[in-house]
Amino acid sequence: MDKNELRNKLISIATRLFAERGLNGVSIRELSKAAGVSISMISYYFGGKEGLYSSVLQEQFSSFGHIEEITTTDAEALVKIESYIRWIIVRYRNNPYLLRYYTSELTNPTQFFSLIVQPAIGKVIQVLVQIIEEGISNNIFRKDLNPVDTVLAMAGMVNYYILSTLATQELINHSPERDEELIRHYMDIFTKGILR
Amino acid sequence: MDKNELRNKLISIATRLFAERGLNGVSIRELSKAAGVSISMISYYFGGKEGLYSSVLQEQFSSFGHIEEITTTDAEALVKIESYIRWIIVRYRNNPYLLRYYTSELTNPTQFFSLIVQPAIGKVIQVLVQIIEEGISNNIFRKDLNPVDTVLAMAGMVNYYILSTLATQELINHSPERDEELIRHYMDIFTKGILR
Repeated sequence: MDKNELRNKLISIATRLFAERGLNGVSIRELSKAAGVSISMISYYFGGKEGLYSSVLQEQFSSFGHIEEITTTDAEALVKIESYIRWIIVRYRNNPYLLRYYTSELTNPTQFFSLIVQPAIGKVIQVLVQIIEEGISNNIFRKDLNPVDTVLAMAGMVNYYILSTLATQELINHSPERDEELIRHYMDIFTKGILR
Repeated sequence: MDKNELRNKLISIATRLFAERGLNGVSIRELSKAAGVSISMISYYFGGKEGLYSSVLQEQFSSFGHIEEITTTDAEALVKIESYIRWIIVRYRNNPYLLRYYTSELTNPTQFFSLIVQPAIGKVIQVLVQIIEEGISNNIFRKDLNPVDTVLAMAGMVNYYILSTLATQELINHSPERDEELIRHYMDIFTKGILR
């Protein structure tokens, strides 16, 4: 294995182990065993278990840095909101452990929360708040909306839909084939509400 | 300590430890040490570590069994929805570890998920779906709503608002004093949408 292969293998195995048992539930010995890599190699490449966890987190949240892609177009606010919903669904579909790290760091933060997770989530929310504010000043959205509450409502709809999968798979089809229908429903509820 | 005190003390200490480190991250020896109670006492009262974890989960999700309270009144669907939002906020305010167990079991389920967590969440969603269906047939809500998607959107707004606290406390005031304003905003967005 060359340097890169070794690094990627360690990150991939650590991603699963930390997701299942948390930063404190996994020892460097277990990581070394599971990856077939010596402890000194882990120390050399990542500076130890904490450094490896931090690299895992960084990789998990790296897609958050690309949120600005949805705002680079000249599109109006509603189109950007739909891009966001699509982006968040793809993000989870491509990354089965992300929601685990996301919720775990928010409900039981490690020392890396404020360095990696908070800035990643904060950036997304900031971009979304701008979209809502833009829509308000362009007279598309209601003037009485609180932009932050509005963004958290929108982010909540989509994040929770994915989060609830295990508990609701008998009630509704969570497969990717239904994503377009879901996006349409959620755009509809979020923009027009539920009243007749 | 009498029997009840001992049981409550063990559950309270286990609730914190399991929340911080998960079912597999805590040993029965640590539980016994932290509570000042012998290992055999834990086995006697709970049948071991797994039994204690199961009792903690049962207590955490016990409030979900009372969801029907919001539907016992003759109130119309919108009033019931507001009661639900209020109920869910109070539920978290009274129970600082609930969201940790909730998200942990959904993203990394233990053997107790299908026995305790799934039925608890399932019941709440079922009650909410009925409220939406009732509102549709009473001509209050739009006929084209998918009831399950609609319920997950509503539950998501409120659950995520609480979940995001650590990442958004510099953006918005998460204190209970703002709860009434938040409930008003979320009822507004959910029922009327965001369009001008």
